Amino acid sequence: MARTPTGAAVLQPEVTQAITDAVLTELAEQGYGRLSMEAVAKRAGVGKSALYRRWRSKQEMITAVIAEFSVNRAGVEDTGSLRGDLRATMQAVLDWLTHPLFSRILPDLVAEGARNPETAESTRTSIGGPRRDLAEVMLRRAIDRGELPPDTDLELALDILAAPIYWRLVVRQAPVEPGYLDRLVEHTLRALGAREKP
Amino acid sequence: MARTPTGAAVLQPEVTQAITDAVLTELAEQGYGRLSMEAVAKRAGVGKSALYRRWRSKQEMITAVIAEFSVNRAGVEDTGSLRGDLRATMQAVLDWLTHPLFSRILPDLVAEGARNPETAESTRTSIGGPRRDLAEVMLRRAIDRGELPPDTDLELALDILAAPIYWRLVVRQAPVEPGYLDRLVEHTLRALGAREKP
Repeated sequence: MARTPTGAAVLQPEVTQAITDAVLTELAEQGYGRLSMEAVAKRAGVGKSALYRRWRSKQEMITAVIAEFSVNRAGVEDTGSLRGDLRATMQAVLDWLTHPLFSRILPDLVAEGARNPETAESTRTSIGGPRRDLAEVMLRRAIDRGELPPDTDLELALDILAAPIYWRLVVRQAPVEPGYLDRLVEHTLRALGAREKP
Repeated sequence: MARTPTGAAVLQPEVTQAITDAVLTELAEQGYGRLSMEAVAKRAGVGKSALYRRWRSKQEMITAVIAEFSVNRAGVEDTGSLRGDLRATMQAVLDWLTHPLFSRILPDLVAEGARNPETAESTRTSIGGPRRDLAEVMLRRAIDRGELPPDTDLELALDILAAPIYWRLVVRQAPVEPGYLDRLVEHTLRALGAREKP
């Protein structure tokens, strides 16, 4: 997501990392609306120019940082079975949503998206879309294994993978225990009409 | 949710309605954090005392208004089958979440709850809890009809009823068409291990 540096400047990865950490902390503490470029720069110990060398605007910076954080946490290794892959995916969703900073960031980003269609669009393009693409790879493995029907409703399947965990944890603020994830996996296998691997 | 009036004062229903409308409009336009009692009173055409006669605080007022709006929309008539009851419940969730004012209010309330445990707790007690109680009545009807197993995991079932619609509509800001609800009903029937009515 970073811009190609203009002129001879090279973007130092450790500076990018310090800025990324500062953006996540400021988002968690101040929220999207109150976050300022000045506060991010100060917290990261850099000048504002270091931010603008990387991103054109506050919105571009926030989207890029959240996207990197979120998309890196979406893919799961092939465990050899749909049951194993679903369990790993749901655990990854849970880890994503319970991250101490991110758990305060995402609800605020969703609220901002409800007020501002441009934010909603960039969130969908940079975060939701790539995460769904990674989950779709996992579902297509199951189709290839013969565990899911070839005409599986992927659009709906992708919704029901993440939705109950978000609803329970973020909207209802109820705990998600390991046993809950296990039961959710079994319900999801039934919902999708999964067969044991032939 | 209104307090018992002190002294001889009687709360006029048409004033309560004007205040309720004003609270919903201010919440949608200003959000939870920026809503002021002054602005609500002005919009409703009443004095601030009319608000404090009904609720002790801003938080109590907001919770009561959202609870009345939300809980009234949660119960569904007995359609005679789980499939029909699920379809009606999901339509009611969709209508609730797509209300022009409320669609902007709920994401903001969830974000506020992530920052403020007291808000989260009163939302859970006054809105989420009663809505779940009504949906549980619907699921118990299906158990009584023999459509769901007696040991149905109600806790999880209640999550998966509403979660995909919220996720799709509010978090992803993707459309929910009638065909989507129909497919979601079929997936939910399978997830819950439902049998056709004997």
